[in-house]
Amino acid sequence: MKKNILVIPGDGIGPEVTQWGKAVLEQIAISFNHEFNFDEALMGHAAIEATGNPLPDETLEKARKSDAILFGAVGHAKYDNDPSLKVRPEQGLLKIRKELGLYANLRPILLFDELLNASSIKAHILRGTDILFFRELTGDVYFGEKTRSEDKNTASDLMIYHKYEIERIAHKAYEAAMQRGRKLCSVDKANVLESSRLWRETVQEIAKQYPEVETQHLFVDNAAMQLIKDPKQFDVVLTANLFGDILTDEASQIAGSMGMLASASIGDGTGFFEPIHGSAHDITGKDLANPLASILSVALMLEISFGLKEEAQLIISTIDRVLKDGYRTSDIADDSTSPYKVLGTQDMGKLVLK
Amino acid sequence: MKKNILVIPGDGIGPEVTQWGKAVLEQIAISFNHEFNFDEALMGHAAIEATGNPLPDETLEKARKSDAILFGAVGHAKYDNDPSLKVRPEQGLLKIRKELGLYANLRPILLFDELLNASSIKAHILRGTDILFFRELTGDVYFGEKTRSEDKNTASDLMIYHKYEIERIAHKAYEAAMQRGRKLCSVDKANVLESSRLWRETVQEIAKQYPEVETQHLFVDNAAMQLIKDPKQFDVVLTANLFGDILTDEASQIAGSMGMLASASIGDGTGFFEPIHGSAHDITGKDLANPLASILSVALMLEISFGLKEEAQLIISTIDRVLKDGYRTSDIADDSTSPYKVLGTQDMGKLVLK
Ligand SMILES: CC(C)[C@H](C(=O)O)[C@@H](O)C(=O)O
Ligand SMILES: CC(C)[C@H](C(=O)O)[C@@H](O)C(=O)O
Repeated sequence: MKKNILVIPGDGIGPEVTQWGKAVLEQIAISFNHEFNFDEALMGHAAIEATGNPLPDETLEKARKSDAILFGAVGHAKYDNDPSLKVRPEQGLLKIRKELGLYANLRPILLFDELLNASSIKAHILRGTDILFFRELTGDVYFGEKTRSEDKNTASDLMIYHKYEIERIAHKAYEAAMQRGRKLCSVDKANVLESSRLWRETVQEIAKQYPEVETQHLFVDNAAMQLIKDPKQFDVVLTANLFGDILTDEASQIAGSMGMLASASIGDGTGFFEPIHGSAHDITGKDLANPLASILSVALMLEISFGLKEEAQLIISTIDRVLKDGYRTSDIADDSTSPYKVLGTQDMGKLVLK
Repeated sequence: MKKNILVIPGDGIGPEVTQWGKAVLEQIAISFNHEFNFDEALMGHAAIEATGNPLPDETLEKARKSDAILFGAVGHAKYDNDPSLKVRPEQGLLKIRKELGLYANLRPILLFDELLNASSIKAHILRGTDILFFRELTGDVYFGEKTRSEDKNTASDLMIYHKYEIERIAHKAYEAAMQRGRKLCSVDKANVLESSRLWRETVQEIAKQYPEVETQHLFVDNAAMQLIKDPKQFDVVLTANLFGDILTDEASQIAGSMGMLASASIGDGTGFFEPIHGSAHDITGKDLANPLASILSVALMLEISFGLKEEAQLIISTIDRVLKDGYRTSDIADDSTSPYKVLGTQDMGKLVLK
């Protein structure tokens, strides 16, 4: 198979971890006799520094032409500390999601047995959990009109949904549910928000087309609680952009660490694969970041964009073996158990490659 | 002390639990020689059934004239299942919050030692946690303009903040932090939302007036994760209406159960006290609800609205003793420990009274 892959390392720990995702792709190409051609592009703070634009035209052009994109992270403390800055790294990520029509963000909560004890949640609560989040990614308050009054003292963001936006991601989520446990939980705040009422009505309509799937509707506050109380109750979770942002970060604690979670953004064209963690500027350059989320993003790319199931499975089983052998990055080390071999980013990357 | 207290039982388990909050107030009046006069009023589904209006004028009038309000919960499955209904129970709660100017919702995450094992989170992660949430309660996407297009296919809610709304709750939160651990974490989504950028700028300004308090800003997705990963890191958490709704329900799992958490809504006038749990129609009338959140709401009322610290302390220590004696409602029972005496709502209420 011949594919063109665009690598966008981005900011913070993005480059450190993406390096290992890319290395794994190269190794897979060799082992399975594929031809993966790589190109690289700028986004976020890195792109602002170089070009003034968080998403340069060149990056977007390369993205459109590629068969899949491996992305790291964007963000920088400078902007977080100064909310008045007009040009911001995250605009690059939001714009590429919109421009590529990446409306469905799949976030599987994949639990490695070996990490059951790395979580702050009790192992018996976690065991058997297998959740697939469908987070809507190109609508909601993320993309609605933003305003700031002239006197600067009033600010707003429009939370808005169109029915077709809800329908298309609902179909994707139901199709996935049909292939899995046939349960779907839609999360909204329909007791307060009009956009959530449209969300709920629409999901109720789509649900009728999938009678084999058991549908449940939860308010987002309740869902945030249930995820910790009893994560096993969930199969597919379908939700809006903002709620999905919050709930999937929360759910990372089920998998032990944010450093273990990958995501796939799909839609009209090229697929986009990234860890769910951010740029983590506090640990950047310290060889502390966990490269497994980037490597797992590569597994998602191989399976979802290229249909290469065997290759994807090999990556997951390799990570499983590395964990079984007791190797950990510091975020998933658990000092209550036998002394782990705690590795830095580089050594963990190398180990998986081997 | 002479006080007029309005009781609004509301819907679902509201009446079952509020009955015990009120009974505890009556007992406190006798023991400490206070005069508490009670009145009752309708809100939510109960009020819609009786008057067509989720917040009848009469209720609002009584509320304005009372010295404090003890509230249960609102909500009903009928409305949850039919998002197209125009008159909804929750409108009553939102309107009374707005009309009474209840802009600050205090949600203490109070951890009883005896319940450390009732949580799905590991005891050593929880031990020592003591968080006080300040959730803004009369602004945000809850109260911004709502629209639905004529063809019904587009719906929106305006997420909007004015600077003064952020300032007044920030002051309250900083004042509380000064009396506690002198740490304040403000939660927003300033990397995406303009209203959050105003939030962050404003909190940064107010922070300067409280140099003894260590201020931190977290994005809401990160905060949702950190709450489970390491809840002990938090002291006062200050956040907007929607984020506070989600994070405090999530944080209920730190305290073992939603059935243990009380909240105080304060602002311009009369204080409003309620459990953070909802109407829970699935367990309504089954003698399963935990009355302790309502009883703890009463403790908050006595302390915050009436300045009766000793009385409030007595309630908390009584609950502590009941728990130490091994009594539990089913939501906080923990089957891995010695066989608890699992009680229904009524028996738990009676026990605390004794
Ligand atoms: C960086 C930020 C804009 C982004 C988001 O909120 O979508 C991130 O948190 C994510 O979840 O991918
Ligand atoms: C019932 C609902 C409107 C309410 C809210 O969202 O504020 C509830 O969840 C709460 O937290 O008090």
